[in-house]
Amino acid sequence: MSQISEVEVIDLRFPTSLSLDGSDAMNPDPDYSAAYLIVTTDAAPADSGHGFVFTIGRGNDIQTEAIRVIAETLIGRNVEAIIDDMGGFWKELVHDSQMRWLGPEKGVSHMAIGAVVNAMWDLKAKRAGMPLWELLGSMNPQELLDLVDLRYLSDFMTADDALSILQKAESGKAARMQELRDRGYMAYTTSPGWLGYSDEKLARLCREALDEGFEQIKLKVGANRNDDIRRLRIARDICGEGFPIAIDANQHWDSAEAVDWIGDLAEFDLRWVEEPTSPDDVLAHSYIQKHISPTPVATGEHCQNRILFKQFLQADALRVMQIDATRVAGVNENIANLLLAAHAGVPVCPHAGGVGLCELVQHMSMFDFVAVSGSMDDRCIEFVDHLHEHFVTPVDVHSGRYWAPSAPGAGAEIKPETLHAFAFPEGPKWTELPDTADAKAPAEASA
Amino acid sequence: MSQISEVEVIDLRFPTSLSLDGSDAMNPDPDYSAAYLIVTTDAAPADSGHGFVFTIGRGNDIQTEAIRVIAETLIGRNVEAIIDDMGGFWKELVHDSQMRWLGPEKGVSHMAIGAVVNAMWDLKAKRAGMPLWELLGSMNPQELLDLVDLRYLSDFMTADDALSILQKAESGKAARMQELRDRGYMAYTTSPGWLGYSDEKLARLCREALDEGFEQIKLKVGANRNDDIRRLRIARDICGEGFPIAIDANQHWDSAEAVDWIGDLAEFDLRWVEEPTSPDDVLAHSYIQKHISPTPVATGEHCQNRILFKQFLQADALRVMQIDATRVAGVNENIANLLLAAHAGVPVCPHAGGVGLCELVQHMSMFDFVAVSGSMDDRCIEFVDHLHEHFVTPVDVHSGRYWAPSAPGAGAEIKPETLHAFAFPEGPKWTELPDTADAKAPAEASA
Repeated sequence: MSQISEVEVIDLRFPTSLSLDGSDAMNPDPDYSAAYLIVTTDAAPADSGHGFVFTIGRGNDIQTEAIRVIAETLIGRNVEAIIDDMGGFWKELVHDSQMRWLGPEKGVSHMAIGAVVNAMWDLKAKRAGMPLWELLGSMNPQELLDLVDLRYLSDFMTADDALSILQKAESGKAARMQELRDRGYMAYTTSPGWLGYSDEKLARLCREALDEGFEQIKLKVGANRNDDIRRLRIARDICGEGFPIAIDANQHWDSAEAVDWIGDLAEFDLRWVEEPTSPDDVLAHSYIQKHISPTPVATGEHCQNRILFKQFLQADALRVMQIDATRVAGVNENIANLLLAAHAGVPVCPHAGGVGLCELVQHMSMFDFVAVSGSMDDRCIEFVDHLHEHFVTPVDVHSGRYWAPSAPGAGAEIKPETLHAFAFPEGPKWTELPDTADAKAPAEASA
Repeated sequence: MSQISEVEVIDLRFPTSLSLDGSDAMNPDPDYSAAYLIVTTDAAPADSGHGFVFTIGRGNDIQTEAIRVIAETLIGRNVEAIIDDMGGFWKELVHDSQMRWLGPEKGVSHMAIGAVVNAMWDLKAKRAGMPLWELLGSMNPQELLDLVDLRYLSDFMTADDALSILQKAESGKAARMQELRDRGYMAYTTSPGWLGYSDEKLARLCREALDEGFEQIKLKVGANRNDDIRRLRIARDICGEGFPIAIDANQHWDSAEAVDWIGDLAEFDLRWVEEPTSPDDVLAHSYIQKHISPTPVATGEHCQNRILFKQFLQADALRVMQIDATRVAGVNENIANLLLAAHAGVPVCPHAGGVGLCELVQHMSMFDFVAVSGSMDDRCIEFVDHLHEHFVTPVDVHSGRYWAPSAPGAGAEIKPETLHAFAFPEGPKWTELPDTADAKAPAEASA
């Protein structure tokens, strides 16, 4: 028996707007940030769970405060009562009738719940001595179903539908776990494609991606049509016919413009078109998907919750689902999202990059392979080689693949020295910056 | 020339959960609250603008902090530069590329922008010496269009569509303004219908509503089907055949259950069915509307932004649009919402109640009559007789109508003594409460 004795929140920001590594059509100058939470127990020795929300700078203080308010309600609570009933814990937080008014189930308050939930999953996995993907993969179908809130989903997927997906995946679990340990999970890289890069740099980075063994790349588009055509031609020439190249417009278009613009890029045989328009717009995505078919529409990194994902699937508005580890209310809601995708027969290719999104979301894809979809076909996880050095157990990505993590936990833990150095605004990495720290240089951007 | 010299934010809460006046199917015990903002200038004499976000208790601290972070960026800025270009100001806040990550355009961060925008509208209207509805109503079509962000709307309503709506309403503006001053705008009351009331109290309050001149009432439903039938029978018997009675399920159902349940209530000739399911679920509302037609589906108090409203209209998923004064990013976004509704030919009947929502939203309906739809047909504004005494210029509702406000401003200003007394948790109304203050008594609920 142990209690939660302390919660600590940290407004952690990296001055990435100072660098010149890329930019996209909507995010010219992000400072990659994490609203970071540590939940500590009074166990002997004390243990802890870590979770966070990724943001891109301004507003990380708001997100941090939201996490603090919710996390402080945990102090004094029994740890085992929480981690033995993670489904009940999730519902308690998400269904809080007063707090729910702030969303419901979207934005700052919902993401804050995600950080709290994920910190408890990190703690649970550490206590189990397992990486999160293995812990989830070893739960049985009913235990997994109990983690998920099916409210508002029944007109697409019933509890019976979800249970039968999980039951079907029972067979072969051990072999799939071993397969992940032996050969990992396909990664793709967004590194070559930031809008701010010169043609020469784009060409060089495409060649490097091939040399490193990546089997898919992604380019940012949407700022200038002729630039997009020229850059895609460079990438296609280097990568060769048939090599998967995806594009990402970061919400830049209205729907008619999207269809027209994408039409001009069709000759490049696109793997998918990502975020063509507002992430809230199911009907616009459905229209775009209809008109660019068979090229798939991909979206999800800004998809607020499972209810919106459900509608995207109902309306054939996406054909690649890009879950994000910190956009929704944590692991539980992403299990719902994986189930919805499996029910629709749509592959999940998570969004990653930022701060620690790769570290977190790899667990969801690997769990999906083990216990939900049972497949790695047409599936891959985004990879951006950035800020991994700050994590206690950084991702192992090489030869174009994510290699299955073996360290216990959810992968969220950032090194103490980083938490000190990059705390905003008082950490030494911020106080020692030249005055240009907040300058508007085009810089590292959202994946 | 003046500058913004100070911003003050207050976490204001009313211990409404202590009373027993009503409850609904999703909100058993709200403490009506406002995350409140005062923007003060260095003009001589100093003037100020007031704005807020309505919440129902826990989380009001998160909302207040979000407003503080955004409002503090205004300190030192030129007031006239802002209030002379309210469209540019809105876009500057909403399109901030880093802050946008927290939504985009939804939840805590978006509502916080709404409070800031509305405070500047309050200041602008006070300086103009006009109530907000008159100020907006006296702007010309191009000036009004410049207030609105049309991004992501063009597949339903183009800039030309919006402009022609506004131009068409130019004719007769002065007469409609006078009509509002002479006979006000229809109100309807939710007071009789809270779930927690006895049948006797329901009957008494229905009779009182009739006596007070209301021409529509609304009942909460969704907790128990037999209770709903019995309560509707009581209300119908008292109000008589043909009297408009709406019902509100506060998001309680999945879509199939909604259709089935509403079918059992059809004999009562419902004016509308409000919030049958998740406010994010365009497709479920469309399904429900199709199956309960000709009874209208009404929703909107939790509708996160204009992009979602657009989809509800595209999909025939609502036939009564219920804008809320503090759910979206302020007056500007609600003008977009009014334009979308006018373009679709759907009446707007705003959500109100809570803290000050009546005071704020009456301006939007009256402006709609003057300069957008040009019609009061099938339109009314919700009224709950609660907490108005705390406002400097409370609504004037009698004889079943909202009477047009004449005081300069947006109606948001709360009395200084209330701001002191109900500040949470340090105000005397909280420190002097018995220990039961946070008890879970069924209580006053969301409208």
